[in-house]
Amino acid sequence: MPDDLRPIPGLIEAFGSLLGPNGVLTDAAALEPHLADWRGLYRGQAMAVLRPSTTEEVSSCVKLCARHGIAVIPQGGNTSMVGGATPEARDRQVVLSLARMNRVREIDVADMTMTVEAGLILTRAQQVAAEHGVLFPLSLGAEGSAMIGGVLSTNAGGNTTVRYGNARELMLGLEVVLPDGGVVNGLRRLRKDNTGYALRHLFVGAEGTLGIITAAVLRLFPAARETATALCAVPSEAAALSLFRRFRTADEGAVRAFEYMSGVGMGMVLATIEGATLPIAPGADHFVLVDLSASREGAGLRALMEQVLEAAMEAGEVEDAALAESESQRLSIWRLREEHPEAQKRAGASVKNDVSVPVSAVPELIRRASDACRALIPGSRPVPFGHMGDGNIHMNLAQPPEMNAADFLARSHDIMDCVNDIVRDLGGSFSAEHGIGRLKTDMMEAWRGGAELDAMRRIKAALDPQGIMNPGKVLPDA
Amino acid sequence: MPDDLRPIPGLIEAFGSLLGPNGVLTDAAALEPHLADWRGLYRGQAMAVLRPSTTEEVSSCVKLCARHGIAVIPQGGNTSMVGGATPEARDRQVVLSLARMNRVREIDVADMTMTVEAGLILTRAQQVAAEHGVLFPLSLGAEGSAMIGGVLSTNAGGNTTVRYGNARELMLGLEVVLPDGGVVNGLRRLRKDNTGYALRHLFVGAEGTLGIITAAVLRLFPAARETATALCAVPSEAAALSLFRRFRTADEGAVRAFEYMSGVGMGMVLATIEGATLPIAPGADHFVLVDLSASREGAGLRALMEQVLEAAMEAGEVEDAALAESESQRLSIWRLREEHPEAQKRAGASVKNDVSVPVSAVPELIRRASDACRALIPGSRPVPFGHMGDGNIHMNLAQPPEMNAADFLARSHDIMDCVNDIVRDLGGSFSAEHGIGRLKTDMMEAWRGGAELDAMRRIKAALDPQGIMNPGKVLPDA
Repeated sequence: MPDDLRPIPGLIEAFGSLLGPNGVLTDAAALEPHLADWRGLYRGQAMAVLRPSTTEEVSSCVKLCARHGIAVIPQGGNTSMVGGATPEARDRQVVLSLARMNRVREIDVADMTMTVEAGLILTRAQQVAAEHGVLFPLSLGAEGSAMIGGVLSTNAGGNTTVRYGNARELMLGLEVVLPDGGVVNGLRRLRKDNTGYALRHLFVGAEGTLGIITAAVLRLFPAARETATALCAVPSEAAALSLFRRFRTADEGAVRAFEYMSGVGMGMVLATIEGATLPIAPGADHFVLVDLSASREGAGLRALMEQVLEAAMEAGEVEDAALAESESQRLSIWRLREEHPEAQKRAGASVKNDVSVPVSAVPELIRRASDACRALIPGSRPVPFGHMGDGNIHMNLAQPPEMNAADFLARSHDIMDCVNDIVRDLGGSFSAEHGIGRLKTDMMEAWRGGAELDAMRRIKAALDPQGIMNPGKVLPDA
Repeated sequence: MPDDLRPIPGLIEAFGSLLGPNGVLTDAAALEPHLADWRGLYRGQAMAVLRPSTTEEVSSCVKLCARHGIAVIPQGGNTSMVGGATPEARDRQVVLSLARMNRVREIDVADMTMTVEAGLILTRAQQVAAEHGVLFPLSLGAEGSAMIGGVLSTNAGGNTTVRYGNARELMLGLEVVLPDGGVVNGLRRLRKDNTGYALRHLFVGAEGTLGIITAAVLRLFPAARETATALCAVPSEAAALSLFRRFRTADEGAVRAFEYMSGVGMGMVLATIEGATLPIAPGADHFVLVDLSASREGAGLRALMEQVLEAAMEAGEVEDAALAESESQRLSIWRLREEHPEAQKRAGASVKNDVSVPVSAVPELIRRASDACRALIPGSRPVPFGHMGDGNIHMNLAQPPEMNAADFLARSHDIMDCVNDIVRDLGGSFSAEHGIGRLKTDMMEAWRGGAELDAMRRIKAALDPQGIMNPGKVLPDA
């Protein structure tokens, strides 16, 4: 161990006396899973992993770190797509895992709120809500590992944003440990509370750089009593958008998800995923998954679905469609969408672009970015898919089959720049739902530079003057 | 004019050269309406009223003010309930009116967004949306004067929060002039954009103390194709809450407003407002206004309304109910609710408490606060009314008929303390939708003191180190 990673004398013992023997990991094997991100992009170091089990313990640990100038890397499920939760390769830092803070403190179906700790896994939050006959709607790929604290710190999105909003909009109050160890007790269960600055909204999406979210009040919703799911083949990206507008106009609140998939991506899924079957005729260039739900009994979603699809077919905007007739058919349609990342992996190397544009610009984004990527790397295969209803498309690019994977990945930044130039031209964002982490800090100056980035830096300096809270994330070095 | 209010030599001329002859008011009569709040609680001074018509002009004015240490009081419709938009009685300050920045920059019904300037009046924003066949749902008492900038700066709520959220949730992006004159160009029309700290959410609700909102991207919604409105007499506060839960469970998205009124308040309206008539039998102690709407054609809201009310009647939770059979009946039911403030005014002096609690605690709030107020001032008449579905009750108290109004008003702070003690005990907030302004700064320490207020002060100092932006509002003097 190099000198600069050697513990400050007595410090580990001090953490131990705060957290007990199970609260501090220093063994190399135990540290291992906390030091690298799951995508394998980053790998860092830490003198220890702290595992507090109460807010007071988090506060005590942070106070001790602040006193000694030790950086703190808050970590939940460590499922960041952008390296937001792994330590850097530098000395004098600890990982602070929220995994032991996994209690449901309170659930109230009259208020439709649930107060939970940061370490609660997202699927568990969904389950607890379901056990009480209500819905916590946030749903995303990593939900079996991602924890509520990380989900809020990154303002996660996912499939149901079109209806229920991002994580931010599902949160009413937060408890946060500040970089000086002070605790903001903001676990208020209020729909209206205009009493000073909305600090909670500053911590949501700050990726742990301004403090550690330790608990949150989440909003709950009535469970769905009726659903209707369809897979549609559509003739163009523009037709997909038209179909979305038809559904939104027909019943504002019914659309729970509206997902776009390209023919290329669908082909990869059908070719590589065992058991994946297309319930409609093959060969389309564009697909859409429409998922409707309603809490009202007898809402007539099936009739609504048929009526909208019929009108769209008459207008030439839908070529073919299949409605799920059972829960297993519904899941099998959803599987075609959910296996997109895995199918891409099996098709070789790919570069991911999590971008967003105004909803109206999605067709243009897909067309222009696909053309530009193919021109940049002949033979490469654009695989755009994702949340059309939010304007959030995963504008991914798969390598040319005959190309060497490493050669292709060496062009990652060219590819990202190529897509982002178009995103920018369309008034979009270079990070829709994955955040900045370490992967995209070097893009902040170009996209958010000037007064906006300056204000962010001032806020960071005001709340974390020592810069000990998740250093190297979100903000680029000055 | 006292010396300390005399213009800095050349300063008014400098503003004039930035804004043109119509851009600077210095005449006493012209200043007058900008110096006092409409409730008549506060009256201040200003060396001029600046009326910029572009963002660049706002920026230039603020830069000039920053250079000379002149305080800037941003003002929209000047309809604050808490003195948030009027200057203090001190020297070296200007009012900066956004009234001339009233353009609709863009409206896009595919994106369902509208980009508007801060000086646009709220009803005008509603009208423009309606002219395009869509809905901007925010609706509140002062909507004929309140401007979008103020509505966002105070995170206004109103009648439709239960369905569409507060102003914050209707905003996607902001353009803001910072206290140093820098411009944050954040007019992004994106549902997903995780690129650093959510500055926009910091300015919403900051009441102009961190910068001046000059323009905003607002969310639009499909227009209602069907509505159903009912006035119900219910036997208790608890029955009113049960009825709300019945509707929410029956159809999550249908409830556009759910308003509680007491028998006392309804009596005042019927006794003092010309043409106000009750469509059900008189004498109830508690009333509820239920307003349903849907964008879906043939949504069957009338059937839903009848079905829920029937079940509630069978359960003894509704005693009597009338459904609006026409638009004029609908408006006449709404009038009973909307005339509550005017009727209270005609019934003598009253003290207003804009408070919120978790929805489940509303019945207890109404009962306990009413009892406590009556015990505090025998003969006084509690007039609770408002947004039950948001947990936001205007827990107002009317003077005893035989008491001197001034004697009653001298007890204002006792009354507010009495109500707030109960609100606090129930986990509520002392300011639900009206904000802090000048009226409630002295309550911030007790309610938000410690780490939370400290973090707010740090943010204020970081973004406005000179303290020139709307001084005396939101944060108490240190």
